[in-house]
Amino acid sequence: MSRGSSAGYDRHITIFSPEGRLYQVEYAFKAVKSTGITSIAVRGKDCVCAITQKKVSDKLVDPTSVSHMFRLADNHGCVTTGSLMDAKLQVDQTRKEAAEFKFDHSYEIPVEYLAKQVADRNQVYTQHAYIRPLGVVMIIFGVDEEKGPQLFRCDPAGYYVGFRACAAGQKDQEAMNFLEKKLKNAETELDDNETIQTAILALQTVLAADFKPSEVEVSMVTTAKPRFTVLSEAEVEAHLTAISERD
Amino acid sequence: MSRGSSAGYDRHITIFSPEGRLYQVEYAFKAVKSTGITSIAVRGKDCVCAITQKKVSDKLVDPTSVSHMFRLADNHGCVTTGSLMDAKLQVDQTRKEAAEFKFDHSYEIPVEYLAKQVADRNQVYTQHAYIRPLGVVMIIFGVDEEKGPQLFRCDPAGYYVGFRACAAGQKDQEAMNFLEKKLKNAETELDDNETIQTAILALQTVLAADFKPSEVEVSMVTTAKPRFTVLSEAEVEAHLTAISERD
Amino acid sequence: MSRGSSAGYDRHITIFSPEGRLYQVEYAFKAVKSTGITSIAVRGKDCVCAITQKKVSDKLVDPTSVSHMFRLADNHGCVTTGSLMDAKLQVDQTRKEAAEFKFDHSYEIPVEYLAKQVADRNQVYTQHAYIRPLGVVMIIFGVDEEKGPQLFRCDPAGYYVGFRACAAGQKDQEAMNFLEKKLKNAETELDDNETIQTAILALQTVLAADFKPSEVEVSMVTTAKPRFTVLSEAEVEAHLTAISERD
Amino acid sequence: MSRGSSAGYDRHITIFSPEGRLYQVEYAFKAVKSTGITSIAVRGKDCVCAITQKKVSDKLVDPTSVSHMFRLADNHGCVTTGSLMDAKLQVDQTRKEAAEFKFDHSYEIPVEYLAKQVADRNQVYTQHAYIRPLGVVMIIFGVDEEKGPQLFRCDPAGYYVGFRACAAGQKDQEAMNFLEKKLKNAETELDDNETIQTAILALQTVLAADFKPSEVEVSMVTTAKPRFTVLSEAEVEAHLTAISERD
Amino acid sequence: MSRGSSAGYDRHITIFSPEGRLYQVEYAFKAVKSTGITSIAVRGKDCVCAITQKKVSDKLVDPTSVSHMFRLADNHGCVTTGSLMDAKLQVDQTRKEAAEFKFDHSYEIPVEYLAKQVADRNQVYTQHAYIRPLGVVMIIFGVDEEKGPQLFRCDPAGYYVGFRACAAGQKDQEAMNFLEKKLKNAETELDDNETIQTAILALQTVLAADFKPSEVEVSMVTTAKPRFTVLSEAEVEAHLTAISERD
Amino acid sequence: MSRGSSAGYDRHITIFSPEGRLYQVEYAFKAVKSTGITSIAVRGKDCVCAITQKKVSDKLVDPTSVSHMFRLADNHGCVTTGSLMDAKLQVDQTRKEAAEFKFDHSYEIPVEYLAKQVADRNQVYTQHAYIRPLGVVMIIFGVDEEKGPQLFRCDPAGYYVGFRACAAGQKDQEAMNFLEKKLKNAETELDDNETIQTAILALQTVLAADFKPSEVEVSMVTTAKPRFTVLSEAEVEAHLTAISERD
Amino acid sequence: MSRGSSAGYDRHITIFSPEGRLYQVEYAFKAVKSTGITSIAVRGKDCVCAITQKKVSDKLVDPTSVSHMFRLADNHGCVTTGSLMDAKLQVDQTRKEAAEFKFDHSYEIPVEYLAKQVADRNQVYTQHAYIRPLGVVMIIFGVDEEKGPQLFRCDPAGYYVGFRACAAGQKDQEAMNFLEKKLKNAETELDDNETIQTAILALQTVLAADFKPSEVEVSMVTTAKPRFTVLSEAEVEAHLTAISERD
Repeated sequence: MSRGSSAGYDRHITIFSPEGRLYQVEYAFKAVKSTGITSIAVRGKDCVCAITQKKVSDKLVDPTSVSHMFRLADNHGCVTTGSLMDAKLQVDQTRKEAAEFKFDHSYEIPVEYLAKQVADRNQVYTQHAYIRPLGVVMIIFGVDEEKGPQLFRCDPAGYYVGFRACAAGQKDQEAMNFLEKKLKNAETELDDNETIQTAILALQTVLAADFKPSEVEVSMVTTAKPRFTVLSEAEVEAHLTAISERD
Repeated sequence: MSRGSSAGYDRHITIFSPEGRLYQVEYAFKAVKSTGITSIAVRGKDCVCAITQKKVSDKLVDPTSVSHMFRLADNHGCVTTGSLMDAKLQVDQTRKEAAEFKFDHSYEIPVEYLAKQVADRNQVYTQHAYIRPLGVVMIIFGVDEEKGPQLFRCDPAGYYVGFRACAAGQKDQEAMNFLEKKLKNAETELDDNETIQTAILALQTVLAADFKPSEVEVSMVTTAKPRFTVLSEAEVEAHLTAISERD
Repeated sequence: MSRGSSAGYDRHITIFSPEGRLYQVEYAFKAVKSTGITSIAVRGKDCVCAITQKKVSDKLVDPTSVSHMFRLADNHGCVTTGSLMDAKLQVDQTRKEAAEFKFDHSYEIPVEYLAKQVADRNQVYTQHAYIRPLGVVMIIFGVDEEKGPQLFRCDPAGYYVGFRACAAGQKDQEAMNFLEKKLKNAETELDDNETIQTAILALQTVLAADFKPSEVEVSMVTTAKPRFTVLSEAEVEAHLTAISERD
Repeated sequence: MSRGSSAGYDRHITIFSPEGRLYQVEYAFKAVKSTGITSIAVRGKDCVCAITQKKVSDKLVDPTSVSHMFRLADNHGCVTTGSLMDAKLQVDQTRKEAAEFKFDHSYEIPVEYLAKQVADRNQVYTQHAYIRPLGVVMIIFGVDEEKGPQLFRCDPAGYYVGFRACAAGQKDQEAMNFLEKKLKNAETELDDNETIQTAILALQTVLAADFKPSEVEVSMVTTAKPRFTVLSEAEVEAHLTAISERD
Repeated sequence: MSRGSSAGYDRHITIFSPEGRLYQVEYAFKAVKSTGITSIAVRGKDCVCAITQKKVSDKLVDPTSVSHMFRLADNHGCVTTGSLMDAKLQVDQTRKEAAEFKFDHSYEIPVEYLAKQVADRNQVYTQHAYIRPLGVVMIIFGVDEEKGPQLFRCDPAGYYVGFRACAAGQKDQEAMNFLEKKLKNAETELDDNETIQTAILALQTVLAADFKPSEVEVSMVTTAKPRFTVLSEAEVEAHLTAISERD
Repeated sequence: MSRGSSAGYDRHITIFSPEGRLYQVEYAFKAVKSTGITSIAVRGKDCVCAITQKKVSDKLVDPTSVSHMFRLADNHGCVTTGSLMDAKLQVDQTRKEAAEFKFDHSYEIPVEYLAKQVADRNQVYTQHAYIRPLGVVMIIFGVDEEKGPQLFRCDPAGYYVGFRACAAGQKDQEAMNFLEKKLKNAETELDDNETIQTAILALQTVLAADFKPSEVEVSMVTTAKPRFTVLSEAEVEAHLTAISERD
Repeated sequence: MSRGSSAGYDRHITIFSPEGRLYQVEYAFKAVKSTGITSIAVRGKDCVCAITQKKVSDKLVDPTSVSHMFRLADNHGCVTTGSLMDAKLQVDQTRKEAAEFKFDHSYEIPVEYLAKQVADRNQVYTQHAYIRPLGVVMIIFGVDEEKGPQLFRCDPAGYYVGFRACAAGQKDQEAMNFLEKKLKNAETELDDNETIQTAILALQTVLAADFKPSEVEVSMVTTAKPRFTVLSEAEVEAHLTAISERD
């Protein structure tokens, strides 16, 4: 897209360009990509798992205080990609909704319903004036009592959709290509370890580099243990070893 | 329309151009077409049926989570074309109205009344500042107790009208041409199967291509079974077979 | 009016141009004309009647769902010309006022009072910022208990006035010219049939074409039967025949 | 005033130009003049009378529905010049105030107080953003119990002032010149007929044409009969005859 | 000030120019001067007196309805210069405050406090957006029980200050020069007649013309009779005679 | 700063320029300087004192009504420099806070807390749109029960800080230079007279001129008599004499 | 970044540029740097300590009234860098939250939670129109009962993160480089004195200059004495001596 072609249709959030485009929403996607982080999530038979890069901007940063993995409810969580500030706003609102749902209905909010809440709020930011869209993609996952492992991706446009595996951020397209090939026939067969290792391998592949356990965050929820869990560095190390041995 | 001729009248939602045009509304129609999806609905003697393309953006998408078919009430539904995010906002509001109507009046909301509610909200978006029109065409259909099968089309301009058959999206004009020829004398004779197959055939014709059951969504409501129903892939397959055998 | 002369005074609804003009209101009139429809209404001795073109945009449209004739109260109705979406908003508000008036006063709202309500709302749209004028002319007619047949025309400028006969839309000026000649001395003599046939003839003349009953909508209220009534196609046919035989 | 000199100071209602002018208010006066109507009012010893042109835009207009003369209270009325739509808004608000005053105080609102209310509202439209001034001059007149015949002129700038005789609209300046000469020494001597005939003669003079009773509206309030009264065509005819005989 | 130098800083009320100027306030002062009226007030030993030109725009104006002298409370009044419409708004608000003060405290509001109220409201108009400053200078005067004769001048900038003598309007600077010379050593000696005649003489001098009593308004409050009083034409005549005889 | 470099960043109050500057705040400081007044305050061992120029714009002004010295509470006061109108708004709000504090806590509000309130309000004017910063510097001083003499300076940027001696207005920098040299080692030794005379001398020096007592305002609060006191002209005269004799 | 490239995307707070950047936020960071101050904080084994430059703008300023160190709760404090006015607003709000938390929960608010509150408010300023981001970086530190010494950095973008050591302001990057080298392996070993001296040394190094105790502010909280404490000049002197002796 050349600059000239937007011709001012990108200065007001609420208007269409003559081609029917909403430029501000497109720029928000650019903001997500520009952070240089790639996140990947994979849904297995009995689990769902997410991995993202952990780029601590400075060696002095307390690594425990930097995370793109957020627990949303007991058995749901998310990985966010893009503006961490915008992500935290979204996480706060989402947690509150999850908690209120549980209080009202006495059971955990379904993952899809949670994803819908996020997307609905995002849609508002694309239609109303005076507030910009959030520059963040939120991948929500968890294990529903009824539906089992669930994986949704909510973007700045207010769109959400379920996935067997998905990616967000700088190399999302490369990651999707890798995952498509890998998962062509595989869905029903992926056990928990395969699921995690597929996610890790996908990230390794698109980054064209190995990484240390401290350079990624991996989280998962399993049917056996339906609790949002962030893997320890030792657990990640074990999977990295398994992958390299498997090759 | 050349760019120059709009001369800024398209930057503010609430104003007419010197020719009496509302540019933002026209751009919203462009947004509907630009999604590349075509939807078709046909009203038969005892049923009403809709078909739309199911383009799953990625093979990893959970196909059950992507749908442009929405139940609005027990015996009414809709197919939306255009922005899925905008569509979901509209569906939510419409469902709520349908539910409140039933609660208040103890009978299902008439299809036309429902279509009117949608159109009224859309009109507001064309008259007031600070909120853009929704980039979605919603085809609402169902079976009224009194009026039988009903089919309405609500567009971003706030316009709604009843149809024997209608289309929306990228190839709506081609589809309308096909349907006009096909239905010239036929209305009263279309039974349920003919109705579905006319819709399917219309889509096949404008796409100039066959498609697999997984590539479309077909839904219907019949007088015999006045419930909004999405057809299974097997049912769609059966109709596709019937069509190809008939040729 | 050349484009240049408006010089930006037409971008803000609430401001006068140096010549004391309100451009947005003028553009709203353009919007009315640009729909290509002409409507005509004639007041007779004991009745009042309206005719408008029925251009169904597509052969598949359910013709019963497309109408520019609206009942406003038991014995009042209107024909609208211009944006159908804007018209429906206006009709809804007007019906509500008519109903509330009857509830409060136990007799039908006078036609003129109804016209005044419509005009008052339209005036507001010409004075306040952030909402555009409605692109519709509403011809309101009916039979008052006291005043008998009544005919008013409400336009986007907030103006309303009573007429013996009036027109709106693309060829309103030609129609007015025809009606003036026709009704020069005639008012007190027009019986019900003459009234209808004058309206039909006026439309035929300005369109320079005959039309089929399905291509127009004719509605009337008579002193004998003070109910807003849309004529059936057969009734219209009968009048068309009478006109052609009379020639 | 050349266009260039306003330089944008005329696009926002609430700001002064460097010369201390409020352009929007000046344009509202232009709007009053551009309607091509002239109104005149004269205050006599025991009466006050107003005359205005009645230009029915079309021969088919019901002449009884077009009037610039409005009763405001039992013994007060007004003639408006300029936008009839804006006038009606103003008349409605003014009537309400008159009625409320009478309800609260059990006697008729004084004419001056009524004029002040109108002017106060107009001032607001010249100071605040987002609402344009009303394009109408309202000449209010009536007979106060205490002060006798009263005549005030309220303009779009929020200015009001009492007059022995005044004019508004296209030829207001010519009318004022005529009235000044005519009334130089005359005030105390004008009886009711002289008052009316002075007003009529003034209008004839500035229009440089005779007119028929149907082409003007004449209204008056007298001390003897303190009720706002619109003269019948026969009464106007009688005065026209008296004037022509007197010459 | 050249036009160019304001460079847009004069289009928004609430902003400073790079030189720290508030252009809209400066233009409001221009609006005051452009009315062509000069007002003068003088404070004597036991009285305070004001004079202003009475330019009746037209000979037909009822001169009793045109006044720039307003009673604000029993023993306080004001003379306004500039927009009469803006003045009346200000007078209304000020009267209300004076009445409320008396109701609350059971004694007359001090003149300075009243002036402060006016100035405070004016300051708001210079700081907030969306409302222009009032184009009027209000000279408030009266006799306080404690402080005796008081004279304050409130301007569009929100400034107020006490004076022995002051002026406003077109020739305010010339008037101030005259008064300064005249009152150099005189304050304590001016009795009531001298006070009035000083004010009259000042006006005569700056206008370089004699005037008739009907061409000015003179009002005063004295310690002996602490009531706001407008002088009759006869009283003004007497003072004019005294002045001319004194020469 | 050249005009060009601000490039529009100075038209909206709430935005940073690319260099991180807030232009409107800088222009407000210009407004303070452009009044041509210099104010100085000095804190001594047992007192705090302020002096400012008293420029009565006109000889006829009642000098008692023009003051930049304001009592804020029994033992606190302030001297303002810049827009007197803005100053009065600020003084009013500050007095109210001081009174409420005393009512709530039964002891005088500390000077620093009062300064903080002023600064907090000023900060708001620099962050929010639609209201300009106040063009005034307020030097607040007084004697706290606990902390003794206190002196704070609050500026349009929302900044406040305590001083041993400070200045504001046209020649604030020259005054600060003088005071720095003078007070290098002196603080603990300045008794009340020295404090006043230092302030007076500083003003004389930067103005490079002697002045009469009537041309300045001097106020002080002492530990011995913790009441905000404006010095009489005789008292100022005495200090002026002492200074000239000391030389 | 060249000026041209922002092309107006930096005039409205709430919009993305085509590259996904929020210019106003970037300019706020510029505002922080432009103050010329550098702040440093270091977390030790049992303490956390902060140092910042104390540049008293003028020798007459009461140095006790100028501080960038603020107590937020009994055992938490902060050092701010950037606009002191904006900082004070933020400190006020933060103190209130800390106090309310303690009142509600009867224990001190955790440092991280406090940092999150600050960041959440900052995020709002980056998403909504009509209010600019705050031009201040706030480094919050303290000792949690559970987690021990804690150190967080909150910036204008709404970002917050924990650190072992961090810096803000003009030379933040140089300081971070120094700290990284210094603390490579050191964290667990830094006792209280080492912590303070590391912070001091870092500031000395980036400023390439020694400084006097009066030219810096040093504050700390220790596990042994969990109270926010600002070091006296003598204490700072002692550390400066220790550093120079150590070299």
